[in-house]
Formats: sequence, structure tokens, C-alpha cells
Amino acid sequence: MDEIMSSKKNILTAVMAAAALTLSMDRVYSDEGMWLYDDPPLEILKAKYNYSPSAEWLEHLQKASVRFNNGGSGSFVSADGLVISNHHVGAGALEKLSTEENNIFANGFYARTSAEELRCHDLELNVLMSIEDVTDQVNAVIRPGMSSEEAFKARREIMAKIEAESLEKTGLRSDVVTLFQGGKYSLYRYKRYTDVRLVFAPESLIASFGGDTDNFEYPRYDLDISIFRVYENDKPAKIEHYLTWNMKGVAENDLIFMSGNPGSTSRLITMAELKSDRDLVLPHTLQRLNRLEVLYSVWAARSKENSRRAKQSILGIQNARKAFGGHFTGLLDPSLIAKKEAEEKALKEAIAASSEYKDTLKAFDQIAQIEKDAAESYLPYRIWEGAQAFNSSYFGFARTLLRNADEKSKPSGERLREFRDSNKVSLELRLFSEAPIYEDFEILRLTDSLKFAIEQLGYNDPLVQRVLAGKSPEARAFELVKETQIKTAERRKAIYAMSPVEIQKLNDPMIEVARVVDGAARQLRKVGEQQAELTKQAHDKIAKARFALMKEHSYPDATFTLRLSYGQVKGYEEAGQAIPFQTDLKGMYAHAEDHDYEGDFDLPESWKKPLKALDLNTPCNFVSTADIIGGNSGSPVVNRAGEFVGIVFDGNIQSLVGEYVYTDVQARSTSINCQFIIEALNKVYGAEDLAKEILNGRR
Amino acid sequence: MDEIMSSKKNILTAVMAAAALTLSMDRVYSDEGMWLYDDPPLEILKAKYNYSPSAEWLEHLQKASVRFNNGGSGSFVSADGLVISNHHVGAGALEKLSTEENNIFANGFYARTSAEELRCHDLELNVLMSIEDVTDQVNAVIRPGMSSEEAFKARREIMAKIEAESLEKTGLRSDVVTLFQGGKYSLYRYKRYTDVRLVFAPESLIASFGGDTDNFEYPRYDLDISIFRVYENDKPAKIEHYLTWNMKGVAENDLIFMSGNPGSTSRLITMAELKSDRDLVLPHTLQRLNRLEVLYSVWAARSKENSRRAKQSILGIQNARKAFGGHFTGLLDPSLIAKKEAEEKALKEAIAASSEYKDTLKAFDQIAQIEKDAAESYLPYRIWEGAQAFNSSYFGFARTLLRNADEKSKPSGERLREFRDSNKVSLELRLFSEAPIYEDFEILRLTDSLKFAIEQLGYNDPLVQRVLAGKSPEARAFELVKETQIKTAERRKAIYAMSPVEIQKLNDPMIEVARVVDGAARQLRKVGEQQAELTKQAHDKIAKARFALMKEHSYPDATFTLRLSYGQVKGYEEAGQAIPFQTDLKGMYAHAEDHDYEGDFDLPESWKKPLKALDLNTPCNFVSTADIIGGNSGSPVVNRAGEFVGIVFDGNIQSLVGEYVYTDVQARSTSINCQFIIEALNKVYGAEDLAKEILNGRR
Repeated sequence: MDEIMSSKKNILTAVMAAAALTLSMDRVYSDEGMWLYDDPPLEILKAKYNYSPSAEWLEHLQKASVRFNNGGSGSFVSADGLVISNHHVGAGALEKLSTEENNIFANGFYARTSAEELRCHDLELNVLMSIEDVTDQVNAVIRPGMSSEEAFKARREIMAKIEAESLEKTGLRSDVVTLFQGGKYSLYRYKRYTDVRLVFAPESLIASFGGDTDNFEYPRYDLDISIFRVYENDKPAKIEHYLTWNMKGVAENDLIFMSGNPGSTSRLITMAELKSDRDLVLPHTLQRLNRLEVLYSVWAARSKENSRRAKQSILGIQNARKAFGGHFTGLLDPSLIAKKEAEEKALKEAIAASSEYKDTLKAFDQIAQIEKDAAESYLPYRIWEGAQAFNSSYFGFARTLLRNADEKSKPSGERLREFRDSNKVSLELRLFSEAPIYEDFEILRLTDSLKFAIEQLGYNDPLVQRVLAGKSPEARAFELVKETQIKTAERRKAIYAMSPVEIQKLNDPMIEVARVVDGAARQLRKVGEQQAELTKQAHDKIAKARFALMKEHSYPDATFTLRLSYGQVKGYEEAGQAIPFQTDLKGMYAHAEDHDYEGDFDLPESWKKPLKALDLNTPCNFVSTADIIGGNSGSPVVNRAGEFVGIVFDGNIQSLVGEYVYTDVQARSTSINCQFIIEALNKVYGAEDLAKEILNGRR
Repeated sequence: MDEIMSSKKNILTAVMAAAALTLSMDRVYSDEGMWLYDDPPLEILKAKYNYSPSAEWLEHLQKASVRFNNGGSGSFVSADGLVISNHHVGAGALEKLSTEENNIFANGFYARTSAEELRCHDLELNVLMSIEDVTDQVNAVIRPGMSSEEAFKARREIMAKIEAESLEKTGLRSDVVTLFQGGKYSLYRYKRYTDVRLVFAPESLIASFGGDTDNFEYPRYDLDISIFRVYENDKPAKIEHYLTWNMKGVAENDLIFMSGNPGSTSRLITMAELKSDRDLVLPHTLQRLNRLEVLYSVWAARSKENSRRAKQSILGIQNARKAFGGHFTGLLDPSLIAKKEAEEKALKEAIAASSEYKDTLKAFDQIAQIEKDAAESYLPYRIWEGAQAFNSSYFGFARTLLRNADEKSKPSGERLREFRDSNKVSLELRLFSEAPIYEDFEILRLTDSLKFAIEQLGYNDPLVQRVLAGKSPEARAFELVKETQIKTAERRKAIYAMSPVEIQKLNDPMIEVARVVDGAARQLRKVGEQQAELTKQAHDKIAKARFALMKEHSYPDATFTLRLSYGQVKGYEEAGQAIPFQTDLKGMYAHAEDHDYEGDFDLPESWKKPLKALDLNTPCNFVSTADIIGGNSGSPVVNRAGEFVGIVFDGNIQSLVGEYVYTDVQARSTSINCQFIIEALNKVYGAEDLAKEILNGRR
């Protein structure tokens, strides 16, 4: 009797909760969502904004969107291959093009002629050409009774097969993407550009004005842009889908769209997974970031050249530290946890009340068990397979060369996934890059990461001891970096062609240390892959139950694939103050003044010399409710007409919990206004030709 | 038969090892040692330098030496109470005297008249007046069969009794000091000065020229000094023992002495203890320092005023990070470990071979077992009793007030040691200090330290949960800091007088959170004290065996009590380059120039304006082989005649392993030349009167 009552009560609660959710979805749509291009939120846009984008509108935006494979987004802005993105997205490429004499990253760059455009060392851009649902094909290979190892292998094989066939057929980069944590599989086909040349970059001071202090803050005033051109056959590529600019920019409450590649979110994970983030992943990650930030900053302070060599890495670390810090803060907020717990409870109760999906409850327990198992090998996994013991570019090359030799003789579908045929071009682009590597910085990083391994796993860990080979971390790092032969692309190409036996005969210390850990690293990876496979199977079930029972139109967690976000240009209130939706150049100069033009609040000389023609009312940056996250950096912002009005480059501090939940009370994404860009090109940088090309859509 | 052979071999090895050690001690004396004033290395000084300081020479230097109770050293340099130390030793006092409008720490200070001298908030100086060996008296209370708890209590009681009787009899601050890790107990009696006034400080830029980059590096060019005056009855104190200056300074190979208070070394610890440092203590400490360095630096970058408020703490953290980093590097050097292992092996073999001390071998195992036990509660101990969860000045007050109420009704010998009668003056000086506390900085620190506790002990740790009280770390820190009543010295005085019941009625949230953890914290402390007691007993045995068997004249590990070091002024070789023993002002300007006068390599305006009279050949800093460590900062350097020739302020990076072993190949201590000080006072700061007082030894 008690049991019946209690189960009845559960059903009621579940139904009520589901109803409440559905009700709220019916009534008040938020601007949440990083939507799939093959499943856009048409009904919400219609209901909330009375807006119905056409298929052509969507296709145009999709194909004008560009993925920066190093972790960002961008868009085509001329028929002659011009791509605009953030400075901080292009920064890696800028740094690799810089030298002690010519610090392009810091001082900026402008190619007045095609001949002056600088080819990037290893930048790969992708344009999404098509999406195909291959869920059934992928899941068909998983049969009941398969071990997790068999299932993982079968899935890896079918994914590689689909990719290889697609590449063969279309010549396009073909990736099978796992969506909804395993609830859906889609084949994404990309046009790939590997000849990417730098056209324009402002000085880093104005690109990241306010530095780490203002990062993830608002109001901001940053010209965080860089402009590239893609080439094919040594000529500027001809682009059909590029965005035209609307120099009117944005007004408050405007509906806007962002099209880019959010890297990763964790909104659909279970409470068990969320607690792993809170208790294990984030503390470990933040601890490592703090130590690296100190290490690199201290080293950078020693000289201008050290600073130049480390600057990129420091910016990346600071950005990650602030972002992950925001995630951690979110997970320590009892109200966020309560919200996530209530959501999971409602879903579980709905599942329990359903005859069809009742069995899915077990999936939550399975995930909890996997998290528990995975926690035990988390540290060794991060240190060895994650290579946290080897913070060294040379080590990355060494491992790739070592593993490639072992993998290349296998069929593509049986290799470690990064060695599959369809990834060959991208892998070789990085491996044979001529980008400079600085040995002093390598030694610093490797010494410290060896110490990190000692601290995390213990000095007497047998593998740690084998890696150290009886030496101090300093001495060992020094000899590994100094004595490895893999320093030139030419030499790496030669080794890349070698057999395992030939490589062993080289007796290269860096390759040999990669070999020392490779057995353990591969074993950890294998276990991790099996755990991931089981997690996917469980999430597949949960996703199916959620679709069926919760009746929401939803979007998968971010996967660094193209998504469409939408929202309104909108200010907000903070500590009783109204924060305006947009800043302007007057504000920029005032902000510099407030900080005595010191440190990160200094402006480059180009902005300090008398600029009479400069319109101080030019808008700089604006905020909106559109739902984005890291990886979206550089995404174009377009209006209802699909016209370019800005580029996303940041979110405010309140948006950082977006990793786990969307909120629009104060959370905002921050974008650069299109007018700011043109004003700067014309009045500050004398880049009128470039501005003209952008505004005309062609040279 | 085998057994006999092997034990015979052991004896032989031990005898040979002991002989080898003795032999090497006979032949080549190094400049190692932080010697006790009641047991100076007379025979070594005689043998190596043909120098025999008289009893008067020693007494004069001892009584001219001043301990800065916040963790440094200094010396009297005039009969009218002038005390000179490092800027970084005085920095805490300088910061407390600074305001947003008048940043004395950064901009410097000079009191041209007595009336202008600024009284420090809570600075206590001590002068060692006498030393008395009380080992037998202390050990007499420990009887066989006592539990570690009984033994600890008995020892605490007798120490408090000796101190109380001495205080009663002499009126002097009386501390029983534990030496040789428990091998010896001495009663140190100090004259105490609590009215200390600031006379002079240079700008922080020149005091720590080169900043964190040059800290623990050489060559250096730092005017790291601050000058105070001690008062009694509102008048400058009359000082009998003060140092006279010798403006000739130092020459290479000069024998010099340093007299100061090295804080702590770990040279006599066993391998088991050393491994605890390597595997547990140092990784934890460095992790925390890295996070604090990032936290404070990021906050400081937001505004000038933030920077002023956090600067002191940042400098302290950076110094500690570099020092502990050096210790860790040392312990990861296989050659250092091999040396320590060989020493312990030789000692153990000598012990095993001796009929009288054979039993002492067990002491090593006991210590190993205690280390193992202590490791288990290390984290909770640091978090709760070490208050790492509460990085807040208000929390410090709250705990003191809470515990004081409980402790004051007990006899002095039964109280937690910091509440013993003989410590009352020092405790109240700090508790009732009017030094400013900044609530924004308090909230920042407390929020982060609550997160640190979560990360270290886990979110679901019951005590962590009780401390958080259902709130986020941000919200909890905010309410604790905002709502506590203990913000003024007046209020703290009132609460200090209250009974436990009255305090409970206050319902002060900061005191209440101190109460929440106090049960656990006290229990952890009790266990820790018992472990420490057992360790002392074991070390007492080892020390006795070492004295008897190894026949070395030796010195105890540093204990922040007065020690005498000696050595030679001497350059060294690094990477094939000869590093000169001394730098000069020419070098200082060249060093600034090399770094474009940027950041920490900028010089204050006072040094940049045309200073025609300045002698650029004036020596700045010099290095010597004398054996010092943190706490020695500010120690006077004197020549054979006992005349002041400089002040120690640093050691080079190679000296950092001095925590565990002395070396003189490259390791050097770094001092400020006396001529640099006088040149600066006369030519840069217009402080001719002060220079005159110093050179004349009176006003």
C-alpha cells in the first residue's frame, strides 16, 4: 500500500514536473540553445520573434560560416576569400609568423597587396557543406551482448568506414559527429582550406584591451579581430557564400543570430557526471592552470623576448583559468545544483512512470558507476595519455611519429581515431609545420610538467621513475629537448615514413620516452574508450526517453560543430546599475584614462596619436542574450536579413555557468560592432582598400 | 656464519664511514653552520681562519642583534635606538602605515625629526639577553611508560613553568627553545620592544629592484633596507650594544660574520621526514602558493588601490614560491638524495656497531611510522588547524578570541602554547593592532580559501558542508566578513574580556564558524602534538648517538633563534662565467637599461633625476659563503673587528637547497654594502642627518 502510494505520488510529481516544463516552454521561450543546422528552432523563432528563416537563408549562413580548426569560428566577408575572426582565434597563427625582430602578434600587420599576405604555418579552416543523419547506420553495428570493448571497436570501425567512403566519394573532409552524448550520429562534410594567409591584424593591446582583467567582463572596448584570406592553387579562393555588411549595426532589442562552433558544454550530463566535474576534473584542471600561469608569467618577466615567446600561452591559460573558474563557481552554487537536481528528478520520475522507458532508469546508475571507475584512473590518464607529464611540442611530435609507425599498418577503422585516413591531411599539416619552437621554453615547460607528474602520481611511481631515468627533472628535460632529432619538418617527414624497427634504431630520446609511457598510455586510453562507449550507450537511452517524455525541442551539447544561436541585443542590470547594451570609442578612451594607460589598459600608439577624423561615437562592443560558449569566438553576428553586424568574442562573467545552464538574467555574449571594425581600418590603420573590399564584398 | 660476516661488514663500513667523515672534518672545514651563541665554532674559526673571537666580541654582537618578530632580523646601529633591517622585513609594518593617499611602502619615507617618526601598529622586536641550558630540567618530567599524550602535557607544563618563573624573576620575554629536534632545550631571555617607530624607508622599486625575477638571483643591486627606532617610555631607547660602521666595506676573501635568526632548516631530519617534505608538504604548499599568486595578482591588476592592498601579500607569496620551489628542486635531485642517504646510512651503521646506542636504530623506524600516521591527517590538519580554509585576518582574530575564552581559565602550563602567560604581550599586540584590514580583499581571500578546502577535502566533507552552511563560497565569505563584529581593536578588547557564554551570546558569525571547526581543529592539533612529542623523543636519542659517535661539533637546525654564521666574501663561477663578488651603481643603471626601465626593472624617480654627486663606483651588493636562510634577512654582516659592513637580504638560487644541505660551490648569501646605504641616504634621499647618526653611532 505504502509502495503504491509512493509510486503514485512519484507519477504525479513527474507528470506535474513535465507539464510545468512543457507549459513554461509553451509560454515563455528563452533565447537558449546552440541549435543544429539540420534541426533549427523554427517554431520558437516563429512564436517568440515572428520570424521564419528560409532554407536559403540558413544555407547561406551555414556556408558563409568558417571553422578555425585550432578552436574558433569565423566567416567569409568577400567573394575573394576574405575571412574575419577574432584576434585571439588567429593569435596562434600570428605568433608563429612572429619573430624577435617582427612581432606581428603584438604590433599588428597589414598586407597592402596580395604579395604581402603571409601564409600561415599550420592553420586549417573548414566550411560545413552538408549534414547527414547516420545514427541508424552507426547503432546497427552494436549488438546486444557485445562487450564494451567490442562495441567500442565496432563503433570506431563503422565511423571510420562512413568517413572514408564519404571522403572517397566527395573529396570533402568527412567527420562522424557524436551528438546528444551518443543519442545521435551525424556525418558532417567540410570543404577544407589549408592555404590560409594573413591579411590584417591590429596590435594585441587593442585586440585584448583590458587584458585578463577585462576578459569575461563587460563593458568592453576590444577590437578583437584578425583577417585572413583563403587560397586555392595559390590564388585567392572564389567564395559563393559570403556575408554582406550592414553598417547600421545593431539597436537594442534587435533579434540577432550567431553562427559558429561552440566547443563544449555539459548541459545534458547527469548529476553523477556533473559531480565528477566539481570534485575531480575542475580542481585538477584549475590547479594545473594556476601553476602554468605562474610558471610562464615568471619566465616571461625575465625579458622581452621571453615574453614574446610565452605570451600566447599565457593568454590561453588566463582565459581557461577564468572560464573554468567560472564553471567551478557555478557548480559550487547550491541554487544551480538544485536546479540541475530538480531537472534530473523530473526526468527520472517521468521515466519511472512510463512503461516504455522504465528500464532507462538503470542508465543513470550505469553512468554513476562509470564515473566512479573512471575517477580511479583519472590522474594517470591525464598524466600519461593526456601527456600532462610532457608539456612539450617535441613530445607531441615524438608521440605522433611513434604511434603513426604502429598504426599505419592497420586498417583505418582499427587505428587510434586521430590516425584514420580521413584525418591524414589535418594531422600532417600540424606534424610538418615549420612554425618555430623555442628550446628554452620547451625545457622550462617539460621540466615543470615532469615535476607535475611527480606531484600527482608520487615520486616513486614506477613509470615516473622510468621517465626520469635517474635524473632530476631539470637534467632530464634538458637532455630530451637538446638531443631529440625531430626538430625540423624535413626530419619529421623522414621519420614519418619509417617502420617501427627503423624508428627504434634511431634511438631518439624523445621518441624513446614516448615509447616508455606508450604501453600504459594506450591501456589507459583503451579503458577510457570503453567507459566512453558505455556512457554513450547509456546517454543514447536517456536521450531517447527525454525526447519522448519531455516533449521539448532541444539541441545537443556543444561539440565544436556548427550551431545556430539567436537572441536579442540587450543590456542588463548589475548591482543596481543599468549596463548599456553597447559601448563606444569615447568610453574606450575613458577606460584607458581610468587606468592611467598602464599595462593592459594602455592603447597602442596608433590609437594615441591625434586622430581628428575618428568618430568617438562609433560603437565598439555590444551584448546580447544569444547562447554561446568558447569555440564560438569569431562567429559572425547577423541580423534578420542575414547581414553581418558584428563578431562574437566574449561572454560576461555571469555567462560562464553556461557550461551547465543557460541563463539570461545577467549572462550575455559580447560582440564587436561592424562599425568599429570599419572605422579602425579606415581611420587608424590606413587600410581603406581592405575596408572597401569588405563593404563591396569583393576586391 | 653469513649473519656474522654481514654484520661484521656493516661494522667495518660504519667505522670507515665515520672515520671518513671525521677525517674530512679535520682537514677541510667548510663555512657551514648556523651556530648557537652558547656553543660557537671556535675550533673551526681558529683552524680555518686563525681567528678567535673573544667572549666580549660575541656578547656585543649578540646584544646588538635584533629579532623582528614578524620573521626577520636586524641590528642596532646607534646608541639612540636606531635599528636597521631589510625593506622586505619592515614591509608588513610599512604597508600597515600606508593609505590610499600616502603609500609609504611604495613611495618611501623619511622622518627628519623625532616627531615625524611613525609608530608601527604591531611590530615587536626582541634582543637576546641570555641563554640557559634547561635540557635536564625539561627531560626530567618525561618518565618511562608515559603515553605520548601524558609526555606532551608534562613537557608543555614544565616549559611554561620555566618560562613563567623566568619572566617573573627577570621581567624578560622567556622562551624555552627546542633544539636538535628535541635533543636540547634552552631558555632564551629577550628584551622586548613594542614601541617601534619608522624612521626611513626607500621606495619599494629600489628596495626590491628586479622584483620576483631577480629575487634569489645574483648579480643584484637592491637597496633592501628600512630603518626604525625603538622607544621606551615614549623616548628613544638608550642602547649599550650597537654596531659601528666600517665604511671600507668588504674585499674579496674577507672573513665576515652574520648574526640573525634563521627561520627553519631541515638538515638533521631523517630520510623518512625528508620524503614527507618531497611527497606531501612541498607539493601541497606550492600548489597553494601558485593559486594564491594568481588570485592576488589578478585582483591587484584591477586597480592601483587593489595593487596597493595586495602588494605585500604578493611579494611574500612570490618569495615563498621561489624558496619552496628551490627546496623541491633540491629534493628531486638524485645527487642530493644520495648524499643524505649516505649520511643516514653511515650514522645508522655507526649506531648499529655501537653497544651503547644500538637501541637508537628503532628511533628511525619510529619516526618513519609517525610520518606515515601524520600523512593521513595532513590535509585536514592544514585546512582546519592550519586554517587554510580561512584565509582571513578576521578569522584569525575570531579564533584567538574564541580560544582565549576557553583557555584563560586553565593554568598557563595547560593552555594551548600560544596562550601561555609569557606570550600574553605578543598575542595582545597583534590582536589589538589598529592596522587596516580591507574587506574586499578579505572577501576575495576567504572565498578562495573556502574553495580550497572544498577541493582538498571534497565538497561533501561534513565539516566543509557545515562551514558553507548551505551557501556558495562567495555568499558565505561575504556574509562572514560583512557581519562579523570584531572589526575594531576596541571591540576585540571587549570580547577578549568575555566569558565563553557571553561570547556565544554575541552570535558573531565569524566566531561561530571558528567554533564550528574548533572541535576538529583541536583534535587534529592534539594528535599532531603527540606525534611531535614522539618525534622529539626519537630525535633526542638520535642526537645523543650522533654527538657520541660522529664526534662532529655541530649546530641544530634553524629555529628562528639567534645564530652566528661565518664565511668569506667570494664570487663564483656559473656556466663558465666568473660572477664577481660585488656589484656597483654603474651595474645597477646598466641592469635597468637592459630591461628598458620597465616593470620591476624601473628605478624610482629619485634615482632617475640627475644625481651629479653620486659615485657610480659605489658598491651595491656582495656575496659570501656564510650559511643563512629565510629569517636571516636583515642580519648585520660584520668583519673580524665586529664592525658593520653590510646587511644580508637574499641568497642566490643555488643556495635554496640550503634547507637540506649546505654547499659552497655556487651557493651564496647576498648582502647590501654599507657604502650603498650611506651613499643613498646622503646623495639620493637628503637624509644626511640619519647618515650622520649611523656613522657617529649617536644623534
